[in-house]
Formats: sequence, C-alpha cells, structure tokens
Amino acid sequence: MRILTAKGLVESRPKAGTRVTPRRNWNLLDPEVLAWALSGAPDPAFLRNLFELRAIIEPAAAALAAERRSDDQAAAMVAALEVMRAKGLADPEGQAADREFHRLLLEATGNDTLISLAGSVGAAVHWTTQLKQRLTGIRRDPMPEHDAVCDAVASGDGAAARTAMLTLIELAQHDLPIT
Amino acid sequence: MRILTAKGLVESRPKAGTRVTPRRNWNLLDPEVLAWALSGAPDPAFLRNLFELRAIIEPAAAALAAERRSDDQAAAMVAALEVMRAKGLADPEGQAADREFHRLLLEATGNDTLISLAGSVGAAVHWTTQLKQRLTGIRRDPMPEHDAVCDAVASGDGAAARTAMLTLIELAQHDLPIT
Repeated sequence: MRILTAKGLVESRPKAGTRVTPRRNWNLLDPEVLAWALSGAPDPAFLRNLFELRAIIEPAAAALAAERRSDDQAAAMVAALEVMRAKGLADPEGQAADREFHRLLLEATGNDTLISLAGSVGAAVHWTTQLKQRLTGIRRDPMPEHDAVCDAVASGDGAAARTAMLTLIELAQHDLPIT
Repeated sequence: MRILTAKGLVESRPKAGTRVTPRRNWNLLDPEVLAWALSGAPDPAFLRNLFELRAIIEPAAAALAAERRSDDQAAAMVAALEVMRAKGLADPEGQAADREFHRLLLEATGNDTLISLAGSVGAAVHWTTQLKQRLTGIRRDPMPEHDAVCDAVASGDGAAARTAMLTLIELAQHDLPIT
C-alpha cells in the first residue's frame, strides 16, 4: 500500500480512508506502473499515447546522440543490436538487448534529464514487445530500422538519426492492433 | 531515508550499509529532486539539460494542444495568463499561474503520458523562476511570449504554437546566466 501511495495510485486521508486517485494523478511513466498498465488488455488510447510520447522524445534524442555519442557508446549500441539480431525478440536476451539499445541512445545524449526517462522508455519498449508477442507474435524483422538508427548515430548524422528513429517507432506501433 | 531511497538518491545493502547512488540513477524529473537540484548554486550543465528537455517536450505538446484543446481548456489558459499578468512573476500567485499555464497546456494534449510530465515541467518552471529572481531579479516582461503560445493554441494553429513555445523556452533560458 505504501508503494501504491508513492506512485500516486491511491491516497489515504485521515478519517476519509484510502481511495484510488484519479488516473491523471498516476505516475504513468513509472516503469512498474507502465508494466501494470500494459498487462492484460491495455487501453488502445493509452498505447497510442505512449507511442506518441516516444515519437516526441526518442527522435529528438537520436539527433542529439548522433552529435554527441562517444566511440564507446557507438560501439555499445552496435553490440546491443548484434545480440538482438542473434537472439531475436522472442528471446528474453534479445528483448533485453533491444531495451539496452534504447537506453544507450538516451545515455549518448549526455543529457541527464533525458537519461532519467530511460527507465520509462525501456519499460515501454519491453512491455509493448511482450504485448505484441502475446497478441500476434513477432512477425516482422525489427533489425533494418534499428540498424538505420544505429548507423545514423554512429556516423554523426543527426537528421538521419531523427528520421530513422521516427520510422522505428511508427513500425513498432504498426505491429500492434491498436489503430 | 526511505524517501531518498524511493527517489533513487541512496541505496542500502545488507552489510554494505547506505551510500549515495551514482547521479545517473537519480530520478531527476521527480519534482522534489528537481527542487533540490535547482536550489543553491545549480550546475549550469544541469540547467542547460533541463531547458533542452523542455524544448523537446513542450513545443511538441503545444502543437498537439492546439489541435485538441477544448474551449474550456483554452479559456482556462487565458485565465491563468490574466492572473500572471496582474500579479507578475515576483509574486507567488503569478508564479503559480505560470506553472498552471504550462500544466494546462500539457493537459490539453489529452495524452495521459505527457500529462504525467506536468509535475516535472511545473517544478522546472517554478524553480528556474525562483533562481532567476535570486540571481538577477525578474527583468523582462514574460507575457508577450506566453500570450503568443496561448493565442496559437486557442486559434488551433499547431505550427505557430510549436514555434511560440520554443521561443518562450529560449527566452526563459536566456534570462539565466548559464551560457
């Protein structure tokens, strides 16, 4: 109950007791709250909103990452995609590598406030993949769009990185039956 | 100590004791953590990062708000700016109205994941205003750029709303001696 209170899902008041707070008070970007919101049969509107948020944050982050990434960061992104390619998204290791790729991209912006969103983005990536697997299976090879983002970031092309990340997010959304 | 742990600032391990976690683990977007980070003499790099994040999120949100706001939401934004105009940013009521304007804009997107960022954006707006007041005083009339955002959102012009919000954020950053 203390955890639910800390995440804004319930509130307790003296004499009034404990009640569920309005949804607008929920910290929907908390990784655990996201996991709950994306389990079962998630609200299609919530899924669209989550992809809309990712389409605001991640393409802008990709452009910054292309300008600022270190060589080690570029190498780590390539390495994450190699694991994702080898294992596939039906495998937990492949899923973890996908999540790590998105985390590394935010980290490469060097902006600590953007990096603070990595837990939320990672949870969104992870739980929408789980959902996809549950609803339709992993039907499409996700590597081309991931490679395109990685190549653009590695070559320092911010505009290409932004476009490639937007495409990646649109394809990920398209895979879910939510339109 | 439980609060610091919940916000990721410290961690306790059996036998190892309690230690401060690396800054990258801090939830820098938690409104209270933001307040601490912006008190005293904040790190100029952190301030730049915070404005960079706002420049990613708020112009995109302004464009969505222009397309989706209800008439009541547009009226509430106008009303918030009237309070801000009447009281000024040196007055706590004027500061609260400024914060409310930015919250209403996120709310008008109708995207609950964006709305979840309202506490962070509000805290950033509030504590950078406090900092400005402490360092240089409120020297510039902030109303023209706020009115420009409000007019564009009210008239449903997404492109103008995006541009006006970006200008607002650039001016707010320019007021702080951090470049």
